[in-house]
Amino acid sequence: MSKFFFHDAEIDLETLEEGRVSRKIRAHDGGLMMVEVMFKSGAIGYEHRHVHEQVCYCLEGEFEFTIEGQTTRLRPGDSVYIPPSVLHGTVCLGEGRLLDVFTPQREDFLKK
Amino acid sequence: MSKFFFHDAEIDLETLEEGRVSRKIRAHDGGLMMVEVMFKSGAIGYEHRHVHEQVCYCLEGEFEFTIEGQTTRLRPGDSVYIPPSVLHGTVCLGEGRLLDVFTPQREDFLKK
Repeated sequence: MSKFFFHDAEIDLETLEEGRVSRKIRAHDGGLMMVEVMFKSGAIGYEHRHVHEQVCYCLEGEFEFTIEGQTTRLRPGDSVYIPPSVLHGTVCLGEGRLLDVFTPQREDFLKK
Repeated sequence: MSKFFFHDAEIDLETLEEGRVSRKIRAHDGGLMMVEVMFKSGAIGYEHRHVHEQVCYCLEGEFEFTIEGQTTRLRPGDSVYIPPSVLHGTVCLGEGRLLDVFTPQREDFLKK
């Protein structure tokens, strides 16, 4: 049976990029995975690509976000759609948080 | 070619439930749709079910959330996973916002 509820207090914070980036893997099962990523100002989400489709919502702060060579600013309430296998990356301009959702799940994010 | 960027300022606010609930359809394409739903205190998301898988993140406020007879409180940072075709609903205890993501897209939400 699926786990339905993922309370913030129960979720481990993972530290990446020498503390400039951290993340919490939130609700996930079946074909969906939600991941919140916290960035210090100046932190970089290096350009990368994956077969998973993705949507991303700016929760807090300010980001420069690039998808396939197109760049925009994201502020709270702004969101993006990233098709499968398309190159994308971000630079954090003001400390903040992004909420990513993937389909299928990023199995590479789950602990073995 | 896909639309990548969905800035908040460009998105219409739809009013539902006589103004007690409103929503913005945010980034969506392919197999993913992100929708932000704003609830007044006391507003109800009546129990319903759909074949789409869903994850939901509490952005603001406080909610009682029920999935298949299990009930919990959601506060900012809490999230839920809703399997396909499972009954779910919410009551807003303190004015707030939920961010839903569906796979596949809720075609019924898109204007004809």
